[in-house]
Amino acid sequence: MKLKVVSKILDANERIAQENQRIFKDAGVYVINLMSSPGAGKTSLLEKTIQKLSGTVTVGVIEGDITGSDDARRIDNLGVPVVQINTGGACHLDANMINEVVMDLPLKDLRILFIENVGNLVCPAEFKVGEDIKVMILSLTEGDDKPLKYPLMFQESSALIVNKIDLKPLLTVDVQKIRRDALSLNPSIRIFEVSCKTGEGIEEWAKWLLTKIS
Amino acid sequence: MKLKVVSKILDANERIAQENQRIFKDAGVYVINLMSSPGAGKTSLLEKTIQKLSGTVTVGVIEGDITGSDDARRIDNLGVPVVQINTGGACHLDANMINEVVMDLPLKDLRILFIENVGNLVCPAEFKVGEDIKVMILSLTEGDDKPLKYPLMFQESSALIVNKIDLKPLLTVDVQKIRRDALSLNPSIRIFEVSCKTGEGIEEWAKWLLTKIS
Repeated sequence: MKLKVVSKILDANERIAQENQRIFKDAGVYVINLMSSPGAGKTSLLEKTIQKLSGTVTVGVIEGDITGSDDARRIDNLGVPVVQINTGGACHLDANMINEVVMDLPLKDLRILFIENVGNLVCPAEFKVGEDIKVMILSLTEGDDKPLKYPLMFQESSALIVNKIDLKPLLTVDVQKIRRDALSLNPSIRIFEVSCKTGEGIEEWAKWLLTKIS
Repeated sequence: MKLKVVSKILDANERIAQENQRIFKDAGVYVINLMSSPGAGKTSLLEKTIQKLSGTVTVGVIEGDITGSDDARRIDNLGVPVVQINTGGACHLDANMINEVVMDLPLKDLRILFIENVGNLVCPAEFKVGEDIKVMILSLTEGDDKPLKYPLMFQESSALIVNKIDLKPLLTVDVQKIRRDALSLNPSIRIFEVSCKTGEGIEEWAKWLLTKIS
């Protein structure tokens, strides 16, 4: 019999994502894949979160950017282990990119690893990197039509950070519509209204994070 | 120094595609990734090609379909080793799918391995599976606008088989436009006008194939 039918094969990214998951689990590190449009505030949220968690849990960061290392330098300034990936042209991080750099971090010394994805509201949601959860940021300035226009990222994320909430008085954006549409796509998504500028909402978000790792 | 900048990392599919290439090279098998829209005649071309090459070179086939094994049965009827992959929902084969089944074929006994991709004129061209060359089929009935509408597949392919050429008198399709546009996208593409029904052009295509492996 030469004919053999094979199904349910992992795709290439999924296979390496599962390898990464084993590595992270063995090291006891909880991994968060942080995604958003460009400029929504991923690095600012990391800075505020790292400062808030300082002395409570150890944090490491993998920074993903098409080019440059500005974000990694901001994290490095906080004294936190960080590796910068430059994807070249790729508009998202994938599992092999993470696989190639995990050993450059002191994984066993970390409790939380943030993976800051490339700024892009579409493709990052399609590629697992071995994370425990995905978290997304939406800047209030992006408008209240985003959940229905970019549904996958809202569906895949465990938490939605609505950032730049301090600008609400200046904008005509309907935060309740964002909440409603996000919850219609993903009834279990946790929503936080945050300002990385004023610090509003960071406490609540950090507390939720601690419940995830406890 | 905690900050490390890493670039030029292979993506997940590329990494496994390179693994496959090593396996194929070690076994001495030449691998052709065969792509086209649904119904352009991939399996019919394989049948005609296998019959033409019978007694000259040993051939194996990996069949990719979302579901079902009709194509693999057609190849099996010719007494040629064949593995059927069912992708579930995926609209293309990727390197890990091939990696998972290569050991089910007697690779060292084969000189040519055809990988018949899922019928799709877009995504298969984006994912290397470890092949030596890509070959695409365009059915004349698909129209002469296809090269400019689906450029990547024409750019990636070493050969373009224009199939169902026996229907030319019945169609208003401009074969010269197909040739012109394909060559403008990819000046080195080899173009064959073929009818898997009448056998026209199969000899020329098979001869070209033999020059590739010699």
